[in-house]
Amino acid sequence: MNTEHLISSYGERLAALTAERGPLCVGVDPHPGLLASWGLAGDAQGLERCARGMIDALGGLVPVFKPQSAFFEAYGAAGIAVLERTLADIKAAGAMSLLDVKRGDIGSTMDAYAAAYLSDGSPLAADAVTLSPYLGFGSLDGVIDLADRGGRGVYVLALTSNPEGAHVQRALAPDGRTVAQIVIDEAASRNAVRCKPGARFGPVGVVVGATIGPTTADFTALRGSILAPGIGAQGGTAADLPAVFRAAVGLVLPSTSREVMSAGPTPAGLRAAATRVLGEMKAVIGLR
Amino acid sequence: MNTEHLISSYGERLAALTAERGPLCVGVDPHPGLLASWGLAGDAQGLERCARGMIDALGGLVPVFKPQSAFFEAYGAAGIAVLERTLADIKAAGAMSLLDVKRGDIGSTMDAYAAAYLSDGSPLAADAVTLSPYLGFGSLDGVIDLADRGGRGVYVLALTSNPEGAHVQRALAPDGRTVAQIVIDEAASRNAVRCKPGARFGPVGVVVGATIGPTTADFTALRGSILAPGIGAQGGTAADLPAVFRAAVGLVLPSTSREVMSAGPTPAGLRAAATRVLGEMKAVIGLR
Repeated sequence: MNTEHLISSYGERLAALTAERGPLCVGVDPHPGLLASWGLAGDAQGLERCARGMIDALGGLVPVFKPQSAFFEAYGAAGIAVLERTLADIKAAGAMSLLDVKRGDIGSTMDAYAAAYLSDGSPLAADAVTLSPYLGFGSLDGVIDLADRGGRGVYVLALTSNPEGAHVQRALAPDGRTVAQIVIDEAASRNAVRCKPGARFGPVGVVVGATIGPTTADFTALRGSILAPGIGAQGGTAADLPAVFRAAVGLVLPSTSREVMSAGPTPAGLRAAATRVLGEMKAVIGLR
Repeated sequence: MNTEHLISSYGERLAALTAERGPLCVGVDPHPGLLASWGLAGDAQGLERCARGMIDALGGLVPVFKPQSAFFEAYGAAGIAVLERTLADIKAAGAMSLLDVKRGDIGSTMDAYAAAYLSDGSPLAADAVTLSPYLGFGSLDGVIDLADRGGRGVYVLALTSNPEGAHVQRALAPDGRTVAQIVIDEAASRNAVRCKPGARFGPVGVVVGATIGPTTADFTALRGSILAPGIGAQGGTAADLPAVFRAAVGLVLPSTSREVMSAGPTPAGLRAAATRVLGEMKAVIGLR
């Protein structure tokens, strides 16, 4: 039986939820310093109270949560069990999960990552994951296919704001394009054949730092979501986004972490911070 | 108290163990097809019998094991618990663990990965890990420092044999070097300040496919271990290595997975295959 028409695409789901709640991704980054500042122990129990406490406070308000896998992996299997429960909480709250794992491999290994993070029934299944293209964008095609079939998405690292990334991301292919532009163009080509008529986003997003400043990167053909980390404590503001993304600013999913988390641990503090940042982002992105 | 002199460096440990057992890394790749071929269930119990069965059979024979994290992550927290026990088995057998995670991130996130995989007391601590440099080699410096202080190492992705990797790895920096060569040169610069006098390896290795064929990549200054996957079922043989690595062939840690694993599940079958491949590698690398 062809069930494709029964599953909403990632792009449709993201567009509907950000239209309702506003365009914002909040990072779930329970690093040791945050646990301490919330008065929590630096162990798997503290991790659980922090991560699940955030979802409990914000799950009905924020459209997309981005748990950073590293902070869960640091506690081994006990931390991964907390990640499983955090992902379940996000789903139960009607929000979407964008699991930040930056995986990138080839062949059966990449298939296993896809099974882990983008398959129905997996304890770690998310709505989307971040991927790294060092082994070639084409090595990610199997993951993209699997994600799209299940109404899920991926975000491929393209252009980041940390200066040491330039020697890879701004290196030039024989045709004169940068590596980052090739990533954007390859994402666009995958979306072109998968994006539903009239839909804003296909399943393949890219990661581009909100604080990279004016860039020659061309997003015209992308038709995918642009995850833009760096809003808030990392220095980016809503007002910076049009200069970086120009006509593509309507595709941007701005991401903040410390700006919201540092307003915890009280639910009221978290909600006030998220509401404020959501308002700032709606003013710039929501009208496009 | 300065305890540096009490801890053997990664390079010293690797050189000593490969001198004793031979130059070989065996991948622990319990993918679903392998579990089925060994008559095991495709669940965390089957995973555990496969991975720990391999170490039980080969732990006293093979110097370095490379568990592929993806195949454990696919079972969520239950799979990670098996990975914890597999790493403990490798250590108890007197072998070294090179955990294939290909992580790459920045700042506090990269610190968390270092804490997870390269810190004393972490349930997932390994002797070395693989890293991905898409966010810039410099983003890995904190991990390299932490690894080296604990007598551990890292292997940074440089040049792989899958054709789709070329548009990133062979892109050119303004000075005309490829991205892959920059990774090799950056690794060399970190080893130059950390490699002990007379030691063959510093703590920073690179990953270069055994089947890339003749290359212009220059390993002259590396002074680090070269993990070369692709030996055996993937088409590479010991005889191919001198053409790829030339004078640096003595730095190569060849890696095989299917060649050994497909000879299981009997311990005798696994040991016969590993002994044969070890002999082939010794003949080419052991004499340098």
